[in-house]
Order: sequence, then structure tokens, then C-alpha cells
Amino acid sequence: MDILDSTLRDGAQSEGISFSVEDKLSILKILDNIGVSFIEAGNPASNPKDLDFFTRANTIKLKHSKLVAFGSTRRKNVNVNDDINLKALLKADTDTVVIFGKSSSIHVDNIICTTPQENFNMIEQSCKFLKDNGKKVFFDAEHFFDGYINNKDFAIQSLKSALKGGADCLVLCDTNGSTLPMQFIDICNDVKTIFPKTPLGVHTHNDSGVAVSNSIIAAQLGFNQIQGTFLGFGERCGNANLSTIIADLQLKLNIRCIPCDNISMLTKTARQIAEISNVSLPKNSPFVGRSAFAHKAGMHADGVLKLSSSFEHISPSVVGNNRRFLTSEISGRTALLQKIQKIKPEIEKNSPQTISILKDLKQLEKIGYQFEGADSSLELLIRKHTNKHKPFFKLLNYKIISEGPTQEYTNAFAMVKVSVHNNTKIMAAEGNGPVNALDKALRSALESFYPSLSKMHLIDYKVRVMDSNNATASTVRVLISSSDGRIICNTVGVSSDVVKASLIALIDSIEYKLIKDTQFDF
Amino acid sequence: MDILDSTLRDGAQSEGISFSVEDKLSILKILDNIGVSFIEAGNPASNPKDLDFFTRANTIKLKHSKLVAFGSTRRKNVNVNDDINLKALLKADTDTVVIFGKSSSIHVDNIICTTPQENFNMIEQSCKFLKDNGKKVFFDAEHFFDGYINNKDFAIQSLKSALKGGADCLVLCDTNGSTLPMQFIDICNDVKTIFPKTPLGVHTHNDSGVAVSNSIIAAQLGFNQIQGTFLGFGERCGNANLSTIIADLQLKLNIRCIPCDNISMLTKTARQIAEISNVSLPKNSPFVGRSAFAHKAGMHADGVLKLSSSFEHISPSVVGNNRRFLTSEISGRTALLQKIQKIKPEIEKNSPQTISILKDLKQLEKIGYQFEGADSSLELLIRKHTNKHKPFFKLLNYKIISEGPTQEYTNAFAMVKVSVHNNTKIMAAEGNGPVNALDKALRSALESFYPSLSKMHLIDYKVRVMDSNNATASTVRVLISSSDGRIICNTVGVSSDVVKASLIALIDSIEYKLIKDTQFDF
Repeated sequence: MDILDSTLRDGAQSEGISFSVEDKLSILKILDNIGVSFIEAGNPASNPKDLDFFTRANTIKLKHSKLVAFGSTRRKNVNVNDDINLKALLKADTDTVVIFGKSSSIHVDNIICTTPQENFNMIEQSCKFLKDNGKKVFFDAEHFFDGYINNKDFAIQSLKSALKGGADCLVLCDTNGSTLPMQFIDICNDVKTIFPKTPLGVHTHNDSGVAVSNSIIAAQLGFNQIQGTFLGFGERCGNANLSTIIADLQLKLNIRCIPCDNISMLTKTARQIAEISNVSLPKNSPFVGRSAFAHKAGMHADGVLKLSSSFEHISPSVVGNNRRFLTSEISGRTALLQKIQKIKPEIEKNSPQTISILKDLKQLEKIGYQFEGADSSLELLIRKHTNKHKPFFKLLNYKIISEGPTQEYTNAFAMVKVSVHNNTKIMAAEGNGPVNALDKALRSALESFYPSLSKMHLIDYKVRVMDSNNATASTVRVLISSSDGRIICNTVGVSSDVVKASLIALIDSIEYKLIKDTQFDF
Repeated sequence: MDILDSTLRDGAQSEGISFSVEDKLSILKILDNIGVSFIEAGNPASNPKDLDFFTRANTIKLKHSKLVAFGSTRRKNVNVNDDINLKALLKADTDTVVIFGKSSSIHVDNIICTTPQENFNMIEQSCKFLKDNGKKVFFDAEHFFDGYINNKDFAIQSLKSALKGGADCLVLCDTNGSTLPMQFIDICNDVKTIFPKTPLGVHTHNDSGVAVSNSIIAAQLGFNQIQGTFLGFGERCGNANLSTIIADLQLKLNIRCIPCDNISMLTKTARQIAEISNVSLPKNSPFVGRSAFAHKAGMHADGVLKLSSSFEHISPSVVGNNRRFLTSEISGRTALLQKIQKIKPEIEKNSPQTISILKDLKQLEKIGYQFEGADSSLELLIRKHTNKHKPFFKLLNYKIISEGPTQEYTNAFAMVKVSVHNNTKIMAAEGNGPVNALDKALRSALESFYPSLSKMHLIDYKVRVMDSNNATASTVRVLISSSDGRIICNTVGVSSDVVKASLIALIDSIEYKLIKDTQFDF
């Protein structure tokens, strides 16, 4: 199965996505590394930045993939040899090109406003022009499914025109993402009957929530190419998500999409692309999400430990992901024990420490703690119960003054006094609000004792009001993620005072970082 | 088509989701309001908090939906009349119950470790027990699809046992989310042939990215019930997303899932549930996401302006969503005009006030405001622009001192100075944390001028961190609901200081209450 990834072209049309040329080059290498067949990387006619990209991309030697440029058929009533779009497409200097043309008569009548015959000429001549210039040509039949439903003959004629022009693959596009699976099956079967020997492909969008499913159906009906974007980026609701499709086809239907060994790179690849695109990969993404193999219900955790396939459709390691047992009121002792044994292997299910940790956890959960997003706080709690942790510092006291209205950005001041090995230190800081001021004062006081803390920064800060009907005296749960570029640490604090809750999570994150320093550096 | 929403039960098993009883009651009302047939709201046997919920939920009169309790078949080797889980299920006191049982022989052999016959007895007797107690019974055949592939006879026998016990609907569960569409079609067809007259349902998970598609397929094959969760919450990769399924079935296949007029509430319902669950609704969610009808490519925007169906599979207003052009925003004016005309009927679409309000709103949205859950703040904003509001007071300044560690519950002190008609008043209060102290001081200062404020209390307080990667200096959005027992008022404040954001929302809520006093009391 040929996989054509359009993250760098159709994916760039997602709201909030904006790739620099450097970003595009990084993603190009990542996609080549996992081994998709084709990487559609830009539209040189519509975007001058893309031409610069192709110039640089052509200097990179790709291991598995072919670089593809994307563009439109020639304009109406223009000689094909004079069309500036097609000329720009040639300038990208790729072996393979995708061109799109209209296969819906509604669009020809209302959007490009020309005759059916001129539309078919545009398709045929553009394909032929590119073939004459030595290109491999994929024809994207835009709005094919809507067009076929509305005017079957017209839609088929557009495909025939592309074939006559020499197109190497006819790609049926569900441009508006409107087609549901049963109808999709029927139309794909019809086209397969009309073009039994022609390579066919599909390009689907997710507006009806079925883009992945439709792509898989096409593969099972014998289609040869699937177009999508690795993380489902794309206009509106996005394109078909290739990370899901590749895993489904390769692992469940034995249809090879990427080199066999590379399927274990799936999760890493997805996370790298998300990182470069500056979006968070949804936790619940099939196969590659952080929660994709996370078990919360006690019965599920129990089942998986007895027989992993009981609640896992594949083994997480196959796609480079991890199984996780979430610690929560619904999950049981078994999941917790695994975490305890990582710290102190000799502890067993009925050891007094297990029982006391469990008791402590239940008590904490009752007042609003939740550890499934705060594994570092949980580790600290386990360490305290198993004599595996002595605090690195003590916060003796703090005072915050905050005032308003003020024109200043910093409207709060915090003083803290800490002690480390019997030395005390007082420090002050200003900040935007009490939490920010306290955070800055505490770090600055501790950095004189522990310089490595200067490398640590907060990457995520979440506040959840628990019993929101207690209004401003409600209990809040604060979750903090921080990193020193090497470890990520997730901690939690609960209090009816948001400052206190933040402080608890902050102190845990500092303690955790200092523990990891002693483990790895010395 | 019967839609069974399990946001409150299976959805609660999502990583990061943790509902309070108040949250659950709010979501119950929202789901009833849009009109799903059944709301599966908890497992009273596994979770004592759920029993408390059912007691309170049963006092609510639902307009459209039936409340459903969920539980397991009886334990092995136990007399059905003595089973504590079934007893707990009865205690929930709902007309309808869902019970799940094993339909995969692998699970019976390895997980519950009993004989096939005992498994079938457990299913049949549990259904019969519940029927004898007057319940409508839906049987969730857990792991049905995997079980059917592995041991067809066993899987079918489990369904027959439920039917013999009197089950009113047999629900085939793809518990691990492993089944791809073509196989799903075959298995559904097989079951339909074996049970031609029995009501059938499906319950799918999204581990392979095809949960929505499989649900739609089942509906087209004549199944009667679809189970899922409104936003696709659920263990691992989540359950089938009902907001997508309902729109696909009702708008594209004419299969009625909710009252016809209510389809326009789809977007609002999705956003309300996301807000209460404290998760951000993914922008690219089909139908209801913020980007679902957002056009970025110039050619798409162009096409849509010529003919909206050119790049939109449905009209966004049908589901209560908006079209957005990302380069040149034109959205929202008509919806806003309706709200403006409630305050000042003579204002029109192109009046200068409409334009200035729209400009102000866009500016506020850019810095993180969102008025969907804060209609009182929006009304105040409109009033300010149309000379329909003079502030009742001015907060001249405030100062807060907060300290720790302390043994006291109150660890913060706030002073405020307000002016009302040229009279000033200084007041102080102590509280648990800075926000609470400030809230108390402000109210107490104002009550001497406006005694009716003493009747007002906050009923909900929510904090959402917007750009969480700015850590403790992140922008936060605070939403406050308050009530005097007669009106409910929803306000919003945004700042990178949680105290300031709370204060903005608090001041709006007081102003709004005082406006309503003058409208209704005098």
C-alpha cells in the first residue's frame, strides 16, 4: 500500500498550524525515517515559501520516501504550455507530482465557471504536460464522492480524462468529508469495476468522523494509495489520520504500509511531529496517545495483568507505546504495587507499607487529590512511606502581598524563608499574581543551595475547582508539569487556597528533580 | 434510534476526568435537555459516590431521557438473590438497567475462571432477577466481537442466555475497540440473521479509530440502540463519540436520534459538557469543534462565499456552530444581534453600536475571554456599549496579605476600599486564600449600601488555565455562577493573576445582580 503523507501541505491548512521551512525539513526527515512512500510537501504555485523549501529539500537524500509537489490543473482557457501554476510545479523539481482537478459538475458550473468540456481538457492536458516532462502523476479528483452522487457521468469522465492524459494513479477525494461508510463502499466498488486495472487511491477528510474508516475500507477493496496526514491535521476537522491507518492496516490486515521493523517507531514519530508542530497530541489518539493503553477501571487493570489481550487490542510495545495503570479510586491494589516495587522491589501486595500507602492514597483522594496525572507526586509519597526520601529543604514560612488596581504587570510580592541543612535563606520576588510571585521567590531562594534548579522550568500548569459550589472557598487541585530538558515531572497539590495548592505541587516538583539529580548525575 | 449516553459512567473512566456529584447532576440535565433516550449514569455497586448521585438524580424530573444504572451480572457460584452487586443496582431505583456479562470464552476461561455453563447461568439468572424486579434490562455483551471471532457458538450462546432471561435489548460490545469496519459489517449481519426480531445495539470503543463509523454501520444495518459518550470520553482511546454519530444519523441518513428541533443545540451541548468536565473540546471535533467550519485556504474561503456547500458538508447553523474565515473573520454578527436587541430593540445589524460591540468582543476573545458560559458578562458588555448601564460602585483599591505555613484555616487577609455615590467605605476580611478573603471583604463593604447582596451567594467557581505552558504566569479564565435564589448569573474574568480574574468575574456578578434588582423589585 502506498501511503502519501500530506502533513506539510494539507496539514498546514489546519487552524493554528504554521510551519517554518526548518520545521518542514525536520518533519520531512522524520516521515522519511519511518518510511511512508510519498511526502507531499507543498504547493509551489500558491506559496513562494514552498519553492524555497523544495530547493533545500531536494538536497536531502531520502532513505524511503519520494518527495512530491502539489498543484492545480492549468487555468481555464490558457494554453497548457503557458500556465504559470504548472511551470511552478516543474520548478519544485520532484520526480512525482499531485495535481487536483474538478470532478463535480456543481463546482465546474459555480466555482470555476467553465464548460464541462473545458474542464476535461484542463485535466487531460495538464496530466499530459507533466508526463511529457517526465513526471510520475497522481490525479486528485476533488469532490469526487459528492460529484459522483450528483452527476455520476461527469465524475467518471473527469477520471477518464486524467487517465487519457497519462495519470499514474486516480485518487478519489472526499474533499468535504461528507461520505458515510456504506455509500463509500458502494462508490469505491463502482469505480473499481469501471477502472479494474488502474491504480486507485483515496483522500478523505474527517468532517463526519469516518475518514480513517473510509481509508481502511478502500484498502480492503483493493485500492493502491491512501492519502492523509500523520496526525490528522488539515482544514476544518482534518484529514485522515495516517498514524491510525498505518497501524490498522499493517497490524490487523497485514497490508504493508511502511517497512515492518518501523512500526515500533509509530509513537515516537507521532510525538516528534506534534512537538515540531507545537500542538499537544490528544491523549486518546489511537495507538500513539498517552492514554491509548492506560487502564483506569480496577477490573480492566486486573484483567490486563491476568491476560494483556483482555483489554488491549494490540500490545503497546509493538507501536512503541507503553501500558499505564492509572492510580485512582476506581483502580486497585495491583496497579499500585507495580509502582511501589519500582522503588522497593521486596515489598509485596500485603506488606504493611502497601497497606499504609493505600490508606494514605484513599485519604488524599477523598480530599480531592488525583494521582493519575501526577506520577512524580505519587513516587514521592511511596518514597516517604518506604524510607526512600529525605526532604532536601524546608519552607519555614512565606508572606505574600498583592494589590490592585495597578498599572504594573507585577502586582504581587512574595517573601520566603527556607532552610537547607540548618542554613536558612530569605528571598523575595515580585510577580504577576500571588502564585507567580511565590514560585519565583522559592526557586530563587533554593538555587543558591541547588544550582541545578536553574535548569528546571514549568511546562504546564492546570487548575481544577473540585467542589465548585463552595465558591471562592472551593477546593482546588493544581497540576504542574516541569522539566529540566531531560526528565519530565508531574505533581499535584490540593487546597481550598489556590496559592497553597500550587505551593504543594511546586515543592513536590523541586524535591523530585533533586532526587533524580542524585540518581543520574553521581 | 435509541441513543444511550454513558458519559457519566464509561466516560468517567477517561484519564483526567473526575466528576463530582454536582458535575454529574449538571451533565444529566444537559443531556436530558438535548433529548438522548437513555443516560447511563453510574455503577452503584463499584462506587459508593454513585449511590448518592442516584438518590439525588431520582428527584429530578427529566423531560426526554430515562436514567439508567449500570452493573455486572451476579458473581460466579452465588445465588442470584444474594448477590450484593445486583442488590446495589436495585438500590439505584431506576426503571432501566444495563448489565454486562462475558461473551468471550477467553475471558471466561482466563479472567473470571469459571465454566461456560456457569457463565451462561450468570447471564440468564441476572437478567431474569432484574426483570422480576420490574426493570427494563439491556444486556451489554462484553468483548462480543473478539469473542465471536474466537468462538462463535459461545458468543451467540451468551446472547441467547440473556434473551432467555428476558433482556429487552442485546448490545454487542467492541470492548477493546479492535474491530475494523468490513468485519464489523459481517458480524452484525450474522447476529441480525440469528436474532431477526430482537432489539439489538452496539457499544464501540475507538482504539482503532473507527468507533463512530462502526456505530453508523450498525444503524444502517437496522440496529436499534447505539451506546457511546457525548464527547467520546472513555477508557484508553475513548468510546464512540455521540455528538458525531447523532449528527451523521439524523442529518445525513434521516435516522431520528433526538427531537428534530434539538439538533441545533448540538454545539452548545458539547461545549457545556466539555466545560463542566474541565477539558478543552478538540478544535477539530466534527460538527461541534471550533474549527469544524473554519476555512483557512483562500480558495476554500472563496468557494464557500460563492456556494456554501462547496466546502461544507452541512450548514454550520444546523448544529448551532459558526462558519469562520480564519484570514478575515466575518462570524457571529447575527447571533449577537439577537442578544443586543433584547437590551435595545432598535439597534440593527449595521448600527455603530453593533460594530463596536463586535470589535470589543473580538479583542476580548483574543486575550482569552469566552462568553458562551458567561451570558451575564455579555449582557453587561452590551449594556455598557448602549448606555444601558451605570456601574453601581467603584473598587478604589485592594490589598491582600497571605501567609504560611499556618495552623489557621484563614491564612489570608484582604482590605478593600469602595465608593458608592461619592461615599467611600473601607472594609477588611479574612479568608482561606487570597481570592476568598477578597470576595468576603468586597461583599461586606458593599452590603452596607446594597443590603440585597446579602441574599446572593456563589454557586459555582471554575478556573481554566489557557496557555498552560506559561506556567504560573499563564492566563487563567475564571467562571463564576451566583444566585440570589431567583436569578442565576454567569460571569467571566481573564487575567494572568487568578485573583484579578476572579475579581473581574465577581464585580460583574454583583453589578448584574443589582441591575436585576432594579428591574424586578421596583
